[in-house]
Amino acid sequence: MSHPFDPGYVAEPFLTLCSEYPGADVYPPDQFRTEWGPIFHRGRLDGSARILVIGQDPAQHESVIRRCLVGEAGRRAQGLLRKLGVTRSYVVINTYLYSVYGSVKARTRKDPRLVDYRDRWIHALLAGGRIEVVLAFGRVADEAWRFWKATPAGESIDVGYAALTHPTQPESASNGDKVKLAEATTALLRNWNKALQAVAPRVQHPDVPTPFIAYGDAWADDDRIGIPEFDFPAGLPAWMREQDGWARRVGPDDLAKRRNITIRIPKGVLT
Amino acid sequence: MSHPFDPGYVAEPFLTLCSEYPGADVYPPDQFRTEWGPIFHRGRLDGSARILVIGQDPAQHESVIRRCLVGEAGRRAQGLLRKLGVTRSYVVINTYLYSVYGSVKARTRKDPRLVDYRDRWIHALLAGGRIEVVLAFGRVADEAWRFWKATPAGESIDVGYAALTHPTQPESASNGDKVKLAEATTALLRNWNKALQAVAPRVQHPDVPTPFIAYGDAWADDDRIGIPEFDFPAGLPAWMREQDGWARRVGPDDLAKRRNITIRIPKGVLT
Repeated sequence: MSHPFDPGYVAEPFLTLCSEYPGADVYPPDQFRTEWGPIFHRGRLDGSARILVIGQDPAQHESVIRRCLVGEAGRRAQGLLRKLGVTRSYVVINTYLYSVYGSVKARTRKDPRLVDYRDRWIHALLAGGRIEVVLAFGRVADEAWRFWKATPAGESIDVGYAALTHPTQPESASNGDKVKLAEATTALLRNWNKALQAVAPRVQHPDVPTPFIAYGDAWADDDRIGIPEFDFPAGLPAWMREQDGWARRVGPDDLAKRRNITIRIPKGVLT
Repeated sequence: MSHPFDPGYVAEPFLTLCSEYPGADVYPPDQFRTEWGPIFHRGRLDGSARILVIGQDPAQHESVIRRCLVGEAGRRAQGLLRKLGVTRSYVVINTYLYSVYGSVKARTRKDPRLVDYRDRWIHALLAGGRIEVVLAFGRVADEAWRFWKATPAGESIDVGYAALTHPTQPESASNGDKVKLAEATTALLRNWNKALQAVAPRVQHPDVPTPFIAYGDAWADDDRIGIPEFDFPAGLPAWMREQDGWARRVGPDDLAKRRNITIRIPKGVLT
């Protein structure tokens, strides 16, 4: 049985980007969980990506797997990419290298050191001229893209672009209220439908040409897709890809929670 | 601030070895924690290694970091390598890809599929002809080397070799008894001194030529060395290298413990 994996950071400029990254001086620990280290990307770094996804920040599953957007948000994003016919030729980065703790101050968000480092990633990923569409999830990702577009290099780039509602915004916004969750989900799926219609014509080289099928008013079963094994580092077990909720921040108070990630293999894996 | 990292599995034969590895059919889950996935190596895979270390099996810190021999045993091994002048040009593999659960049956240990896969690693690491010394930690690692030496390729290889007591055998053997621990530590250090004297002349290309200084009867402070940042995957936080005991298997019973790894950032990192 073959287990394809993502070799990670094997060539420039990514070797340098992953060894010289901003730390706690740029990402203040009162606003970011710098103590868990930066998470850089998920997907293709070999120049084959056609879609660049900009997410928000890594959470606990990402901190274990060391790749962006691997939990429930990742599976929803994966379904969106498939609607565009892109099953492999994508790359994901986040607005922030580190997990947000509380809220991020405007001064931090606009810190040229933070922005410049991220722009170096965007620049590197767009450099080959293969990216056809950029998708930004959430408000800060949209801002990240606009900051880049305002640079001289950004001004000269012509790609399709859509700012989308973040894949798990309905959960964040509804706080356990089922009616609100359903409404926010419908709003998200309408937002995504609009975005898809806008950018679909720009995807000229899909992996699997796919007729456009819009989302309904609620998630359908196959709207969420497992993240492919070839996106993960070598040797990771299947349950890390296929299931969710196996990593939690547990503790009696905020500091204890911040210091903790508890990994628990989902039921049914071990009997 | 630069953070050198280990790029991992970027070229053949390692790309294939890390995508086609034995699973639960070869490593039975009643003897191995296959559910946490295989851990392949630590150190140089670019042909620059002069010393090959064969360890035993990965534990919980290794399961998070996805590299071999990174805890206390790793720091002791690192000190041993430095006594041979080797601070970078080494590579570590384990006898077993997966963490041992309970004890390993002879039939499993000798399963040709298990042995052959490991031999492919040993073969790949010795192929460049640069390895001058092989160090085996513990009885099963010694057996692994002898199995390889009995193959046609193994018979024709001439390298220095020593079978050493496993770096944390004193802790395993003394079960909390301080007198026994001190005795077992002295025995280990004498065993290591003998091995060092035997193999030191074979290390012809040390990174830092180092006059031989024997171990005393107990660990000295600088006998244990932090594992270099360049051995870890990109972006891992410093406390994962510098401290120990931050990953534990916690739970009310054996199955719960087996399903769990609890990561807790050491005190002093976050204040």
